[in-house]
Amino acid sequence: MTTLNEVAAHAGVTPATVSNVLRNRGRVGAATRERVLHAVKELGYRPHLAARALAEGRAPTFALMVSSIANPFYPEFTLAAERAARTSGHFLIVCNTNDDQETGRAYLEQIAGTLSEGVLVTNAELVFDDLRAIAERGTPVVLCMWERPDDPPGLPCVAVDFRLAGALAAQHLLDLGHTRVGALVGSKSSHDDLSPFGIHGARRDGFVERFNAAGNARIVAEFICEADTIRGGYDAARQLLKAHPDVTALYATNDLPALGAMHAAADMGLSVPDDLSVVGITDIQLARESRPALSTVAVPTEEAARMAVDLLRELIDRAPRASRGNPGNTGTPPMRVTSAPVMVPRASTAPPRTQDQRTRSSLRRR
Amino acid sequence: MTTLNEVAAHAGVTPATVSNVLRNRGRVGAATRERVLHAVKELGYRPHLAARALAEGRAPTFALMVSSIANPFYPEFTLAAERAARTSGHFLIVCNTNDDQETGRAYLEQIAGTLSEGVLVTNAELVFDDLRAIAERGTPVVLCMWERPDDPPGLPCVAVDFRLAGALAAQHLLDLGHTRVGALVGSKSSHDDLSPFGIHGARRDGFVERFNAAGNARIVAEFICEADTIRGGYDAARQLLKAHPDVTALYATNDLPALGAMHAAADMGLSVPDDLSVVGITDIQLARESRPALSTVAVPTEEAARMAVDLLRELIDRAPRASRGNPGNTGTPPMRVTSAPVMVPRASTAPPRTQDQRTRSSLRRR
Repeated sequence: MTTLNEVAAHAGVTPATVSNVLRNRGRVGAATRERVLHAVKELGYRPHLAARALAEGRAPTFALMVSSIANPFYPEFTLAAERAARTSGHFLIVCNTNDDQETGRAYLEQIAGTLSEGVLVTNAELVFDDLRAIAERGTPVVLCMWERPDDPPGLPCVAVDFRLAGALAAQHLLDLGHTRVGALVGSKSSHDDLSPFGIHGARRDGFVERFNAAGNARIVAEFICEADTIRGGYDAARQLLKAHPDVTALYATNDLPALGAMHAAADMGLSVPDDLSVVGITDIQLARESRPALSTVAVPTEEAARMAVDLLRELIDRAPRASRGNPGNTGTPPMRVTSAPVMVPRASTAPPRTQDQRTRSSLRRR
Repeated sequence: MTTLNEVAAHAGVTPATVSNVLRNRGRVGAATRERVLHAVKELGYRPHLAARALAEGRAPTFALMVSSIANPFYPEFTLAAERAARTSGHFLIVCNTNDDQETGRAYLEQIAGTLSEGVLVTNAELVFDDLRAIAERGTPVVLCMWERPDDPPGLPCVAVDFRLAGALAAQHLLDLGHTRVGALVGSKSSHDDLSPFGIHGARRDGFVERFNAAGNARIVAEFICEADTIRGGYDAARQLLKAHPDVTALYATNDLPALGAMHAAADMGLSVPDDLSVVGITDIQLARESRPALSTVAVPTEEAARMAVDLLRELIDRAPRASRGNPGNTGTPPMRVTSAPVMVPRASTAPPRTQDQRTRSSLRRR
């Protein structure tokens, strides 16, 4: 690889002059400038980003920690974060932890502060103490999709009001006239301090509160999904629908299990939305592309990604190296809240059939 | 960030000794060793991967170029490549080009040979001359899913026999008794030297050859998908089915358009597989999770990713720096071929109805 020194020798100038030309700094005459650029081209020299970043005490990438790149939410978030990161010339190193704490820890140890000058965390299984340790050693960490703006995590974060998202889903079913519904809540969490309903506790609580406040309506059953996947939603929905065939709607705390619930309904001979309404949360691309298209509460994924990258850059630029991202040195860690989630009604929800219609439909299925 | 020199000063040894202890090199007494490790721990020193890699003339990442991280094939490939890369301590920088040549070129210019010591390319829209230029400057490039093992690309590659994949799909439909079918071919390509049927030319040719060889069978129509997406397949399928309502099966050169074809059929009142069989290629996770589950030709994605990472490592280790990955210096660029694709029959294909059944079904729909 051609070095700066070789370019300087070829052009008959000092390395500092080459550097000045490449960065548009200092005063360099037009002829010298041209000679340097000619040498750069002739030798195929490319400024060594990593070396430059190291020389400046900066590394040129952000690390993006994701639970499972196979979950289509994360590629969508990655796309948005990448666009945001590129505006400051940063690349994203996508670190996929496969929901494993140890893998997450290994990535953090290897990457934070060496390859990457900041860490974006989108997943919930990482141990907060690990993240705080990374931050205290000088590499800012931002949690990208904190679900409870009313309960800050003690780390810099971008929060989305997922309790409201749950409430909007409940209101949608209430507005349609549903009074007996089931809830599929996913999934388990490794954090003791979170709700017993796991990483989706806020989504669950918001739904339950709003639905129960209606008085005449009732949540007949809540089932926990084994996994936050289509399969996890399928299994939980089957169990719930078998145990409680009288529900007219299912709420799932995420789109993938909601899609699984639609499959389960189909396999049990139930037509969505005629026999059963299904509503999810997130609005991933598949929600728009499923048949029927999924009614869901859209969360501002792109906005959250952009805000998280902006916050990370601020933490990097603002704080002195020694206290970067260290909550102890900067008071309360910053929390930014995105705009509110929005209910997007599609084809998977409709008013419940009357008892009469349901009986006929049920007879026809036998 | 703590430096090696600070650790050395703290332990009262030379930086070289610290380095030796951390790498298990040289001869260091037990007491000294313990003192160094104590200092490392106390100061929170972590070996600076990027700096070390630069010092050794190596960068610690591979770049993985993908067309569109939103296409679920790429996350699946990314997962497999990441697993393979991690076995040698490499991280994957995922570069998403959004099917744009210029973005791809920018990534290559910025990353190849600086941040990354090798480049894995999974997408077809990149300009081969750009890739060759990168390779000639000393950064090996491997094409990960070359579709035509009978026609090497002039760059190191891992090839999958996609012509055979197309043939297997044709044989599956023939075996079921289909004699009048349509083909959805995706999508356009920016390479002049590829087939007029774009990036999926081999998949198309394999299907057409095998199907036509059956004698009594006929491909009634071929439609090009605007995009290699569910939507692209949906639009093309609608057009094809409207123009040729007599086809009993559709072949799509990829799973996403095949899923779109199933949606189009549903919207036109056709039941899959009773009224229309649909078969795809790849076997992405969605193929297993769709309703009905998609019959498709599974390509060895994991194996291809593993082989591509292995080949990239070989190119990096084997060649002298100056000629790394340079086809001019090493003769014919290596091509590895994966094991053969395999037909996976699922619920989206069945024998065609008899004419009598079809007429009745058609009457019922009116």
